[in-house]
Amino acid sequence: MVAKTGGTLPRELLAWYEPLTPLSFLHRIACVMPDKVAVICQDRCWTWQEFFRRVNRLSNALKEAGVRKGDKVAFLSRNFPSLLEGHYGIPLTGAAIVAINHRLSAPEVANIVNLSGAKVMFVDSGAADLIDTEDLPGVKTYVNVLDGQYYGEASKKLLPGYDYEEFISGASDEYIKLELEDENDIIAINYTSGTTGTPRGCMYSHRSVYLRSLANIVEYSLNAYSVYLWSLPMFHCSGWCYTWATSAVGATNVCMRAPEADKMWELIEKHGVTHMSGSPIIFQRLGKYMDEGGIRKFPHKVIVNNAAAPPPEAMLIDMEEKGAEIGHCYGLTETYGPFTLCEWQPEWDGLSLKERISKKMRQGVPGLTAGEIRVVDEKGRDVPWDGKTIGEVIMRGNNVMQGYYEAPDEDDKAFKHGWLYTGDGGVIHPDGYVEIKDRFKDVIISGGENIIGLEVENCIHRHPDVAEAACFGMPDEKWGEVVKCLVTPKPATSPTAKEIIDFCRQRMAHFKCPKEIVFGEIPRTSAGKVQKYLLRQKERERFEQKKSVPPAQ
Amino acid sequence: MVAKTGGTLPRELLAWYEPLTPLSFLHRIACVMPDKVAVICQDRCWTWQEFFRRVNRLSNALKEAGVRKGDKVAFLSRNFPSLLEGHYGIPLTGAAIVAINHRLSAPEVANIVNLSGAKVMFVDSGAADLIDTEDLPGVKTYVNVLDGQYYGEASKKLLPGYDYEEFISGASDEYIKLELEDENDIIAINYTSGTTGTPRGCMYSHRSVYLRSLANIVEYSLNAYSVYLWSLPMFHCSGWCYTWATSAVGATNVCMRAPEADKMWELIEKHGVTHMSGSPIIFQRLGKYMDEGGIRKFPHKVIVNNAAAPPPEAMLIDMEEKGAEIGHCYGLTETYGPFTLCEWQPEWDGLSLKERISKKMRQGVPGLTAGEIRVVDEKGRDVPWDGKTIGEVIMRGNNVMQGYYEAPDEDDKAFKHGWLYTGDGGVIHPDGYVEIKDRFKDVIISGGENIIGLEVENCIHRHPDVAEAACFGMPDEKWGEVVKCLVTPKPATSPTAKEIIDFCRQRMAHFKCPKEIVFGEIPRTSAGKVQKYLLRQKERERFEQKKSVPPAQ
Repeated sequence: MVAKTGGTLPRELLAWYEPLTPLSFLHRIACVMPDKVAVICQDRCWTWQEFFRRVNRLSNALKEAGVRKGDKVAFLSRNFPSLLEGHYGIPLTGAAIVAINHRLSAPEVANIVNLSGAKVMFVDSGAADLIDTEDLPGVKTYVNVLDGQYYGEASKKLLPGYDYEEFISGASDEYIKLELEDENDIIAINYTSGTTGTPRGCMYSHRSVYLRSLANIVEYSLNAYSVYLWSLPMFHCSGWCYTWATSAVGATNVCMRAPEADKMWELIEKHGVTHMSGSPIIFQRLGKYMDEGGIRKFPHKVIVNNAAAPPPEAMLIDMEEKGAEIGHCYGLTETYGPFTLCEWQPEWDGLSLKERISKKMRQGVPGLTAGEIRVVDEKGRDVPWDGKTIGEVIMRGNNVMQGYYEAPDEDDKAFKHGWLYTGDGGVIHPDGYVEIKDRFKDVIISGGENIIGLEVENCIHRHPDVAEAACFGMPDEKWGEVVKCLVTPKPATSPTAKEIIDFCRQRMAHFKCPKEIVFGEIPRTSAGKVQKYLLRQKERERFEQKKSVPPAQ
Repeated sequence: MVAKTGGTLPRELLAWYEPLTPLSFLHRIACVMPDKVAVICQDRCWTWQEFFRRVNRLSNALKEAGVRKGDKVAFLSRNFPSLLEGHYGIPLTGAAIVAINHRLSAPEVANIVNLSGAKVMFVDSGAADLIDTEDLPGVKTYVNVLDGQYYGEASKKLLPGYDYEEFISGASDEYIKLELEDENDIIAINYTSGTTGTPRGCMYSHRSVYLRSLANIVEYSLNAYSVYLWSLPMFHCSGWCYTWATSAVGATNVCMRAPEADKMWELIEKHGVTHMSGSPIIFQRLGKYMDEGGIRKFPHKVIVNNAAAPPPEAMLIDMEEKGAEIGHCYGLTETYGPFTLCEWQPEWDGLSLKERISKKMRQGVPGLTAGEIRVVDEKGRDVPWDGKTIGEVIMRGNNVMQGYYEAPDEDDKAFKHGWLYTGDGGVIHPDGYVEIKDRFKDVIISGGENIIGLEVENCIHRHPDVAEAACFGMPDEKWGEVVKCLVTPKPATSPTAKEIIDFCRQRMAHFKCPKEIVFGEIPRTSAGKVQKYLLRQKERERFEQKKSVPPAQ
């Protein structure tokens, strides 16, 4: 039971209640700062008023195309302004946005679109090769987003349907407020790979993205002077809800197609970028680019919000030395992105760089509006706050998704006794800060992307010479982790590593494919369960050893 | 109808919903920053953990004294730490805090306590003279807050009952979470004088003070480094919700008994105060004190949040010249204090001081979490956004009170068609910023306190020589406004101004008494309605003329 009714008054007569929705942020800022720049992409920019009008046109065009409350609208695109518009224009119809990772393979994308039941789909022409309309029987309308318009590229494949500009230009720019019956209604569905490799759609509510946006603003000091660089894909946890946080305060969005280091640097300098987020690899690359160009410092204060994978120490140090203020948060697609942040304590200012970094390595405490976190043993009892005992990290509160879309069985696995079980293994330090140490679930995080071991194994098992396979994460300087696989060949066969890797690359998104394959027996418990933690542990030890040997001069 | 239920799951099994309450701020910060200083008062200070424990003791002591969910607990006190504790410890029992203005007269205080139905009452010994227990039949338990403990004063009158420290020290410091059934439950009732002079209790909800706290944080850049000086009385709109905003981010509270300029300066220097709020007179006095002491600048950045009355231009300029960053917000007791703020636009940075101040004089736009504002004519139609046409300011949204406590007739007057009618007359500028120009309701704002003209008139009418009286606000350099009264004596009598003023001072809080009395006919409409706007207009013209004449050298 979420909340009592507000007495007997119908909503329209209730002066003191308004459902929480981030759509109110945009309406407000378009009135308050109409002429301030909202979005920059290449040589073009739009003010908040212009952006607002485009959003209204998008929403009205979708209604004309038959989109109604409760519908789903898919968006397969890189970080173009249209995708940001989609985060407002789609919910403004009462529908939910389903933003999809364009680095998935064609069958993976099709699976997500079909599971979501999307009726309308927006496709960036740079990703159109992933779409075969015959595989998507539910999609009635396609809208092509022509990246060439912004980037001067020749557009590639076009799907039968509209051009984005044509689609919206015919519609009215009148603002028609969404009369939200319930602030817990769904604004977005973000798909994550399940432990079985089946995508699961995390349902985000208007209320919770509103609260997460406010937490982002407070935790990372976002305001009207901020310039937010879209180094983080908007399809990842709704761009961790920065898609909406920027309009709350009137910060400027700087869009970019892909977080290439040279492009990031150019935009940081050109537009005075103050904020950016992403996985560690983005900032490792940026640091390397600066080093190679002989650039010692950022030209002004830059606040970096790192997440998606535990930050390597070297990257944290590098960013700090270059003058960035780097923060670290942790969460899941199931938790609107960041649930915790490594909340900085004023008294830590006086520590040495090394000590400060060791504080910053930790995933931290629940964000301002997030809820509660615990680390528990197998029986659900809190582990001691000793920084040593590993347990499973569990969470509850407004920062937890409403469940998986149309997948009650998956909900039953994820939620127990009113808590979300993350599958991440962590410790809790004496000061209450959580640190992630291992994973209970079978996930490998590579370049900020989640890869399910089982999914890769299922693919490898289809190779005729493979008897068994166990995939696991191998630490990697560049990607955080990459997929490694231990394969037991069938008797009297001798497949090569290259053969198996090529086999995978023909069938899966490339980032999911193993980077290294070794052959041998797979360690198992007496009950027959694969002991992946042993394989991971061995790799971590090897990695640490390698790091401690100084490179040959 | 406020919100649908969250399906069929009972609350304890719902991982994704937690009622919004500022009590979660304190619980969180006591875990995250236990050893950081939470409250400073004179030579003593308490960490967040200590403060949290004291709050828990207070709450458990109240439960032992029989306080239950839905009860009311009154608090008559200056800005001592115990009053801040009350803003958490009382709601933690499920009861609502009724903080009362200690500058009211004894009958006024008794009236409020009785209307609220408070069972327990906390009384600052410096205000105990206002209490006659015989007048308060509903109060079963008194707790004396001994200001001497903090300020070294000899305590004065003591009420039969507990000493605050004794009251809480016997109780457990265990945290017992409030299981809030509905986030719209009442956390505080703040009494304001009605237009008839009858106090009306504005009901504040857990949800809305949570949202207002977040808005304060974002709008005034409050964070863990902030040091908040309590120059604003906590009994005014729950200290405009800063009582709760400080724990959300772990800012330090510096308590002070009364906002005397010398004391403020001492605390600003000593504790590195970064934030303070209040009515213009506070900052006028502070500026004067600095001038007299030859102090040209604040020693560090200070953010000043001015409200409660329109800010005089000279004060804004003075504060800016002294290096403060001064903001301006506007609201009512009915709107959790600030509903609008004069939101600063980055592009205004380049304006001259005079231009910047003229922007800042305006009451502005709705705050981030506030809701909607309109300026309407008598038929409820929006006035043109021309900066000239005066209409009544109306508001709706989460920043509007839930209504007056047990006063449905007053609700019917305040709310129309789902909007709160403020009784303030304003214009709306072409950029959407509201500016208050006059009052439709009969209120005089003196030193940040609201005074109802009718209440003063009712008192004066009891004087044997008075036939009629009309009270209205007269502009005043120091107080913003003071009460002026036009009196028509009874035939064949000739009362003096001093006689009538003395008569009032024996019967009412001194700040409400007329400062000037003139004798003559009262202007009325043909329908017999007193034309107070004419009287106010004349005073404003006189005031402007006086200002434009340079003082004699």
